[in-house]
Amino acid sequence: MTRPPPYDRGVDKDNRPVPFAVDDFRRRMDRAATEAASKGFSGVLVTPGPDLVYLTGYAPTAVTERLTILVLAPGRPPTMVVPKLERPDAEKATGASAVTLVDWLDGADPYASTAPLLSADGRYAISDAAWAMHLLGLQRTLPGTTYVSLTDGMPMLRAVKDPHELDRLTSAGAGADAAFEEILGVRFAGRREIEVAADLAALLRKHGHSQVDFTVVGSGPNGANPHHEAGDRMIQQGDAVVLDFGGLRDGYGSDTTRTVSVGDPGAEVREVHEIVRRAQQAAFEDVQPGVECQEIDRVARRVITEAGYGDYFIHRVGHGIGLTTHEPPYMVEGETQRLVPGMCFSIEPGVYLPGRFGVRIEDIVTVTPDGARRLNNSTHEMQVVA
Amino acid sequence: MTRPPPYDRGVDKDNRPVPFAVDDFRRRMDRAATEAASKGFSGVLVTPGPDLVYLTGYAPTAVTERLTILVLAPGRPPTMVVPKLERPDAEKATGASAVTLVDWLDGADPYASTAPLLSADGRYAISDAAWAMHLLGLQRTLPGTTYVSLTDGMPMLRAVKDPHELDRLTSAGAGADAAFEEILGVRFAGRREIEVAADLAALLRKHGHSQVDFTVVGSGPNGANPHHEAGDRMIQQGDAVVLDFGGLRDGYGSDTTRTVSVGDPGAEVREVHEIVRRAQQAAFEDVQPGVECQEIDRVARRVITEAGYGDYFIHRVGHGIGLTTHEPPYMVEGETQRLVPGMCFSIEPGVYLPGRFGVRIEDIVTVTPDGARRLNNSTHEMQVVA
Repeated sequence: MTRPPPYDRGVDKDNRPVPFAVDDFRRRMDRAATEAASKGFSGVLVTPGPDLVYLTGYAPTAVTERLTILVLAPGRPPTMVVPKLERPDAEKATGASAVTLVDWLDGADPYASTAPLLSADGRYAISDAAWAMHLLGLQRTLPGTTYVSLTDGMPMLRAVKDPHELDRLTSAGAGADAAFEEILGVRFAGRREIEVAADLAALLRKHGHSQVDFTVVGSGPNGANPHHEAGDRMIQQGDAVVLDFGGLRDGYGSDTTRTVSVGDPGAEVREVHEIVRRAQQAAFEDVQPGVECQEIDRVARRVITEAGYGDYFIHRVGHGIGLTTHEPPYMVEGETQRLVPGMCFSIEPGVYLPGRFGVRIEDIVTVTPDGARRLNNSTHEMQVVA
Repeated sequence: MTRPPPYDRGVDKDNRPVPFAVDDFRRRMDRAATEAASKGFSGVLVTPGPDLVYLTGYAPTAVTERLTILVLAPGRPPTMVVPKLERPDAEKATGASAVTLVDWLDGADPYASTAPLLSADGRYAISDAAWAMHLLGLQRTLPGTTYVSLTDGMPMLRAVKDPHELDRLTSAGAGADAAFEEILGVRFAGRREIEVAADLAALLRKHGHSQVDFTVVGSGPNGANPHHEAGDRMIQQGDAVVLDFGGLRDGYGSDTTRTVSVGDPGAEVREVHEIVRRAQQAAFEDVQPGVECQEIDRVARRVITEAGYGDYFIHRVGHGIGLTTHEPPYMVEGETQRLVPGMCFSIEPGVYLPGRFGVRIEDIVTVTPDGARRLNNSTHEMQVVA
């Protein structure tokens, strides 16, 4: 279950990630175009963000109202429409030599520059986070075209990680685990949540993260708000404290949660923690290629519901992770996508008792041919801090 | 021309900004609904980002695939659809008490939760940066609805600043000016662009900025790429160096550019700088209520074109600024929007000679009843640095 994945290594002899090369990007773009065709799409439209980074290595300095869009269509060379003044930046991207650039000048209509690359009655998959403004511009310019979001139309585009990506996610997970180990040694009682959050952020950076995206410290009743970040509340003896933190290491995400107790947790917290631990473990053990995503959610939910806490588990059990912290596949009721080796996602059941406390346990896992492998490996036993 | 604006003050006696109150948000939401109706819209749909901050004070911890959307329709109470697990955060926003919240649970269809708030054949203005995924979800759920981006349909929504906003922009501009004054004293020759950029970032923070968004240091040939940020190039004696920097102070943006010379600039740089200075001044003097935005671009462009450099001025002359660095109104050919007192935007002509050097001068200005007032006031004379 915990054997290393059967992949080539994406790191060099010093364990540093090998940069992605133009061939990686060319292969990804080819695959995207082929997959689009197999799903009946005329092509894929990609705007700045993780999809564009994945396919070309290009990230504009800022995502603005100026249209940048990569058009991938089967049998046609990849072409990217860019603002003229950003062309020099685009040309520097690793994948740029595999892409034809078309630029447009301020004051011109960028949708008119894009239209010749599209079929007038085409059906396209478009980046989830493409600006509505740009989608409306395309719909206006080519009223015969239709669109589906990439997550709805081609959710698997980035879902199966290649060996280089998997190594990065593994090292991000290990960095987050190391941060957790060290946070157990800091003082909790009598300090504010934001102080512990600052410690966590510093530890993520110490352990290789270039970017810290979130450091949730939800103490006592604040732990019952699953998206509480960290506030001014003074942490008290006896508090359960939800620690949910992550960021980017070598461009790939980490995201892990542990719930610790400041001193003795007491019977109820202990009981809820054990239920959540069992739910996490049951979902983990259920992971196999071919299993539907919603099944992972159901398995965890069943454990919590049977223990009587079903009404207090108010979110899906997991989300994919890669270049972004939240991406397909989603482990949620209604998601019939089947698991495939190389997928990486969180398993993070929780119980939230309003006004009292919350408990969540979260690991990133990857699907292997014979089950799940954890990318977070710190203990699931409830840790007691001072 | 430089008299203070005829507004109430948005700062307290210690010159600190007065926080926006629920009545500010209620007034803005009322105005948005009324303006939508007057333009034939059934309402306004606002997703997380600057529009939502402007209208409610609410900024979710992260903008994700989970739908959050504010629906403003004339004669109906403002209503915001939020993910259940983010509801506690939404409730804490200053404007929340003026908004009805509707939540949806993971696994449910958020567009189904939104549909009852919309007319089945309605025409809506929607946030520019709303995710395409969400727009497609609304179009799929209510196929009779039509949409226009806020910038296309209601570009004036945030364009005219109120007194509190104007004070914030004024203080952001003053902070950027103070950073510029101090950067003149640092060493340029023999240091890398990124080192000077780091100095600039530190100076913006020293002068009140909570966030640094960009610190362009374009030395010598790098200055000819208008969106070059800062790189490893060693700055050399005789370089022209474009410094374009800004960020957020009390939530509002700064954005200013000056081009300095490392030692004597030489005749050509001096000549180009003088042309750009005259273009900036001409555009500034052309600002009056009622003038079309495109006219501001034309006036600056004419000066540069008549001097023989028209082909080297490859971007619009300006953009609005407020909660974001780029927003309507845009000073660009084709923009017939007329100027209104309280609008704030950049005037930033430039000349870019590929492989050689670039020159740009940029001030934020605000429209007053009798012309423009600069929010950046550092000298336009070319400064020589060491």
